[in-house]
Amino acid sequence: MNKRYIINLLGYILLIEAAFMLLPVAVGLYYHEQSWIYFLCTAVIGAAVGILMVLTRPNSRALFAKGGFVTVALGWILMSLVGAIPFTMSGQIPSYLDAVFETVSGFTTTGASILTNIEALDRCMLFWRSFTHWLGGMGVLVFMLAVIPLAGGQTIHLLRAESPGPTVSKIVPKMRTSSSILYGIYLGLTILEILLLRLGGMPMFDSLCNAFGTAGTGGFSIWNNSMAHYNSYYLQGVVTVFMALFGLNFTVYFYFLLRKPMMALKNTELRWYLGLMLGAIAIITFNIRGLFPTLFDAFHHAAFTTSSVMTTTGYCTADFNTWPELSRLVLVFLMFIGACAGSTGGGIKVSRIVIMVKSTIQEVRKLVHPRSVTVVLVDGKRVTDETVRGVHSYMMIYILVTVLSILLVSLDNFDFTTTVTSVIATLNNIGPGLGLVGATGNYAGFSAMSKIVLSLDMLFGRLELFPMLILMLPSTWRRN
Amino acid sequence: MNKRYIINLLGYILLIEAAFMLLPVAVGLYYHEQSWIYFLCTAVIGAAVGILMVLTRPNSRALFAKGGFVTVALGWILMSLVGAIPFTMSGQIPSYLDAVFETVSGFTTTGASILTNIEALDRCMLFWRSFTHWLGGMGVLVFMLAVIPLAGGQTIHLLRAESPGPTVSKIVPKMRTSSSILYGIYLGLTILEILLLRLGGMPMFDSLCNAFGTAGTGGFSIWNNSMAHYNSYYLQGVVTVFMALFGLNFTVYFYFLLRKPMMALKNTELRWYLGLMLGAIAIITFNIRGLFPTLFDAFHHAAFTTSSVMTTTGYCTADFNTWPELSRLVLVFLMFIGACAGSTGGGIKVSRIVIMVKSTIQEVRKLVHPRSVTVVLVDGKRVTDETVRGVHSYMMIYILVTVLSILLVSLDNFDFTTTVTSVIATLNNIGPGLGLVGATGNYAGFSAMSKIVLSLDMLFGRLELFPMLILMLPSTWRRN
Repeated sequence: MNKRYIINLLGYILLIEAAFMLLPVAVGLYYHEQSWIYFLCTAVIGAAVGILMVLTRPNSRALFAKGGFVTVALGWILMSLVGAIPFTMSGQIPSYLDAVFETVSGFTTTGASILTNIEALDRCMLFWRSFTHWLGGMGVLVFMLAVIPLAGGQTIHLLRAESPGPTVSKIVPKMRTSSSILYGIYLGLTILEILLLRLGGMPMFDSLCNAFGTAGTGGFSIWNNSMAHYNSYYLQGVVTVFMALFGLNFTVYFYFLLRKPMMALKNTELRWYLGLMLGAIAIITFNIRGLFPTLFDAFHHAAFTTSSVMTTTGYCTADFNTWPELSRLVLVFLMFIGACAGSTGGGIKVSRIVIMVKSTIQEVRKLVHPRSVTVVLVDGKRVTDETVRGVHSYMMIYILVTVLSILLVSLDNFDFTTTVTSVIATLNNIGPGLGLVGATGNYAGFSAMSKIVLSLDMLFGRLELFPMLILMLPSTWRRN
Repeated sequence: MNKRYIINLLGYILLIEAAFMLLPVAVGLYYHEQSWIYFLCTAVIGAAVGILMVLTRPNSRALFAKGGFVTVALGWILMSLVGAIPFTMSGQIPSYLDAVFETVSGFTTTGASILTNIEALDRCMLFWRSFTHWLGGMGVLVFMLAVIPLAGGQTIHLLRAESPGPTVSKIVPKMRTSSSILYGIYLGLTILEILLLRLGGMPMFDSLCNAFGTAGTGGFSIWNNSMAHYNSYYLQGVVTVFMALFGLNFTVYFYFLLRKPMMALKNTELRWYLGLMLGAIAIITFNIRGLFPTLFDAFHHAAFTTSSVMTTTGYCTADFNTWPELSRLVLVFLMFIGACAGSTGGGIKVSRIVIMVKSTIQEVRKLVHPRSVTVVLVDGKRVTDETVRGVHSYMMIYILVTVLSILLVSLDNFDFTTTVTSVIATLNNIGPGLGLVGATGNYAGFSAMSKIVLSLDMLFGRLELFPMLILMLPSTWRRN
């Protein structure tokens, strides 16, 4: 591995984070809070270290698959360790481990919180907390590729390691243009949501934070009762729709920009995603209709919760932990499925589910008609055996990480529901689970070890397993 | 499909079941119980119908893969429907649905019970209930192949559909000899266990029933408190060892018979099976040491429970539902893994786990070193891509059946733990789960629909998904 070049790249990441930390500084100054100084301190030190790292001249700029994975994994860990500093320096999250958990949860767009009283935080802290969602949603390295002219054609390995989904959607042949287009669409949609929330009378600060949380499908709220704070069908409705929009593969928007809407609508993943979402909303609405005064209310909360859980955002308008078991389980299964590849959402991703279901149907068909020749088609194109095998290994590693994490967290001896769903909710970057980590609960009660395990799970989930796995393999660090 | 030949084969299954029903008749007569008459009635009517079915002359004896699957699925359903009749006729299990659940649970060697007071049943009923485990353990069709000289070389499709594991272990080239050897080993081990239990002072009736339950890795007990009834380290120890022995691939015993013990010990699956079992026993012993007066007691109960759960037997000496969460979860994961292929145990099977883990390691290696050439080796032989793909589709269908079953059972609105583990415990043919269906609970409280779903899950699990899946596919029943 080209270690000097990796240090170089990590330096750029630090510089980008330092630059973005000036935003909470501005927020703190605007609201006359004292705590902006901690962001400035962290930004200045971070920038200084970053410059030193950037100045280390690498002998070459060659970066292979392994190096790409390691850079991305280390980059995200570094970002989280640095991003957590202001929380602890200011004393607003006294334990550094808790602050790291919260920051990892932010960058990975999980939204799992160790805070018992969110509203006690300063506005600049809340702003940074929500902003980590926005930055983590589309990816810091994707951003880096968009703004920093890196030489060498191997940046594909960075994009591949950070972008969600079984295949990389290189929108246009040039990496830098692809990244810019993605961030352009992302920024545009975020601004549109802010405008629509403002139209509904939401304060500017709230609109910004909630839009960041929606865009990154993160779920950190600035209120203890999450989205239930805004008792408005309109505001909650806007968030419902935008969560679903940010859970879509961004290629779909690109086709719309190219004025090829038919290409967008032919997208297999889009159809499955909408089909599953609408199906779940229908089942849950019917199942919880007795808990609400009108059928519309039941539909409203079912739609909000389904959109929130399936896109792995994690905002709440109602405590779904108290819903009937069928609804709870539909939501748990949606947690696994997650959003589309190439979106800001987490989970296994709809496209992987599509590939697995279709390749299984093909295998069953072969079993019954041994001489038939069939292929797996997605978007009208044949899925290669290599992709199918890749998805299967992904699932196996996913199961392995889940099992190991559950066993480690079980040492805290919480109940079955809490133990299992805390791992599911972090690994899939959702945030709230069921039981003690339900919509009204939080992660404060876990031991230090469980908090570390769950933080790693969030990183495993956001980076889609391989970067973290390869970082942890002893063979990666062995000298040849 | 060759429907006439399938009817013919189903007739033989009825005849075999009718013959075996004479055993509980004898038990009833011996204990001067009235209820033996119901077994005789059922046997006589079953035999009459069976003879009529056998006499339908099929035009041909060709049986392809699809026909094999359908025959096995229908055969097992038929056996269960007929085997349940005496329970309901005698009024000892008044509801026929409950009786069918109990009989399916017996034949599939699950051991899940709807009885709240087992000891109220007549001895001939208890005998039949336990004997269904023995018959279902090695497989009724395997028995049929051993005793009935069927023409045609396509009986491999029947054996393949009924034998557990990703590949069929045809011990010797001739199907009938293979089946006879398997049943010979099975009978021999069962008799050995009966003798050892008798040596420990267990009454003859108890020894028979418990040996049947162990051999089939079933788990029906004749006492309400299961194996805790025999407060003897020796007796519980014998059962611990025999459960583990019946969870082994029977090919291992065949190698011992051939005096090739080294061949047996080279078996990859055997090593993983023993490794996982010993690892789990060590973890659980350490975890529950505080709950028992001595470390030996903790080890004794940990070993019994691990052997019982991993082989999917389901006997209990202690209520593991009250153990710490780590132990409970280790047991839940063992429920998924299950016993060896070619054993009488259920679950996913160790060999499938081995293939999945090894093929995943290979894929990760390829990712890091794209130009390396690696193959998956099991027992020193290369595993074909087709087998790996088959295991992956198996897992996908397994997950799909699990998810659908959980959603249907969740309509009963029991808690998360009960809902999820009832499906896991039936699909993997274990018996007890956690929560309301824990070691001291039972399945009486479920709705009729859940009982049907869970009964189907038991059949799906025992027959390893494909026979039941193909039986349910509309395309199977469409005319060409």
